[in-house]
Amino acid sequence: MQRENEGLLLVVSGPSGAGKSTLLHRVMQERENAWFSVSATTRAMREGEVDGVDYHFISRECFLETLDAGGFLEHNSYCGNDSLYGTPLAPIRTHMAAGDCVFLDIDVNGARQVREKLPEAILVFVTPPSMEELETRLRRRGTNTEAQIARRMAAAAQELPQAAAYDYLVINDECEAAAQELQAIVTAEYCRCTRRFPYLKF
Amino acid sequence: MQRENEGLLLVVSGPSGAGKSTLLHRVMQERENAWFSVSATTRAMREGEVDGVDYHFISRECFLETLDAGGFLEHNSYCGNDSLYGTPLAPIRTHMAAGDCVFLDIDVNGARQVREKLPEAILVFVTPPSMEELETRLRRRGTNTEAQIARRMAAAAQELPQAAAYDYLVINDECEAAAQELQAIVTAEYCRCTRRFPYLKF
Repeated sequence: MQRENEGLLLVVSGPSGAGKSTLLHRVMQERENAWFSVSATTRAMREGEVDGVDYHFISRECFLETLDAGGFLEHNSYCGNDSLYGTPLAPIRTHMAAGDCVFLDIDVNGARQVREKLPEAILVFVTPPSMEELETRLRRRGTNTEAQIARRMAAAAQELPQAAAYDYLVINDECEAAAQELQAIVTAEYCRCTRRFPYLKF
Repeated sequence: MQRENEGLLLVVSGPSGAGKSTLLHRVMQERENAWFSVSATTRAMREGEVDGVDYHFISRECFLETLDAGGFLEHNSYCGNDSLYGTPLAPIRTHMAAGDCVFLDIDVNGARQVREKLPEAILVFVTPPSMEELETRLRRRGTNTEAQIARRMAAAAQELPQAAAYDYLVINDECEAAAQELQAIVTAEYCRCTRRFPYLKF
């Protein structure tokens, strides 16, 4: 009997400084079938960025057309001439149908849109162990100005209560332990009866 | 911040020969806070059995009194003079309140009763990889008569479709892989927002 399964969609959110990127990097390295969703954006490409790797850089017209056609799983809704960001739906469907584990690194507003469109999505919130530790981490980076740190701390204070609406909460105190938890969440979700039972061959 | 959590109640079912006991033994060894629920029974103690370890051996009167008082989480409902079996509720509540991971090895009928009384219980069904493999395992034990094997195979065929009502399905093909899956299920369930969020200290 083959261990066949439906794919998974893991939405990972958390304040800047919680350590999401490192965590995701570790977990994805250990999973053959992991696939990271690349967002589309209308903003200009920056030095060192690669189209299709960091983002899919597309025109505003193309973005709005795709949006109209229902081609984004979620998108930001900034007004005016702000840059637009969205998550292309088609590759996610393809990878999920292949049984892959699709990872999405998006904010709480994006996660809410995903939950509405794909209720089977698994929502994981990554928090720092405390607000003090979050501030320490933001300062340690050395790339943030005082104003940026203050803005990120304020954003975190707003985001954290919204973690209650997520399925899982990973407290990133020590990266190795947190990575094990995220890994366990993926493994457990593949074991869900709703996903595995239809593939049982008796 | 301490990683405090509510306790877990894991109900593990599966046909005889699926390898539940070995699996549970492995997983419990690796968890400090694991606690295995010992059933109460009215049947006579057998050679080599220890009261309070294999079962709590109690009188029929005591069993029925406890049942009347709501002292069992689940119990079998054999008629006539058959032996009675039940899961004492009080120690389960105590261990769950202490944040422990409580394991229960009971059948599909027991699991249904648990789900009704404690909806937060996590139901895990352990299957062999195939009916052929189940038969091979039952024969390999060398302790079953042909009639017993036939009875167990028939029971398994009846139980397996009921796995659909469980939360998780662990296919015990290779014990080490299956143990890792069960371990992951426990870890992931401790990460559930419903259990962890109330303990966040921000």
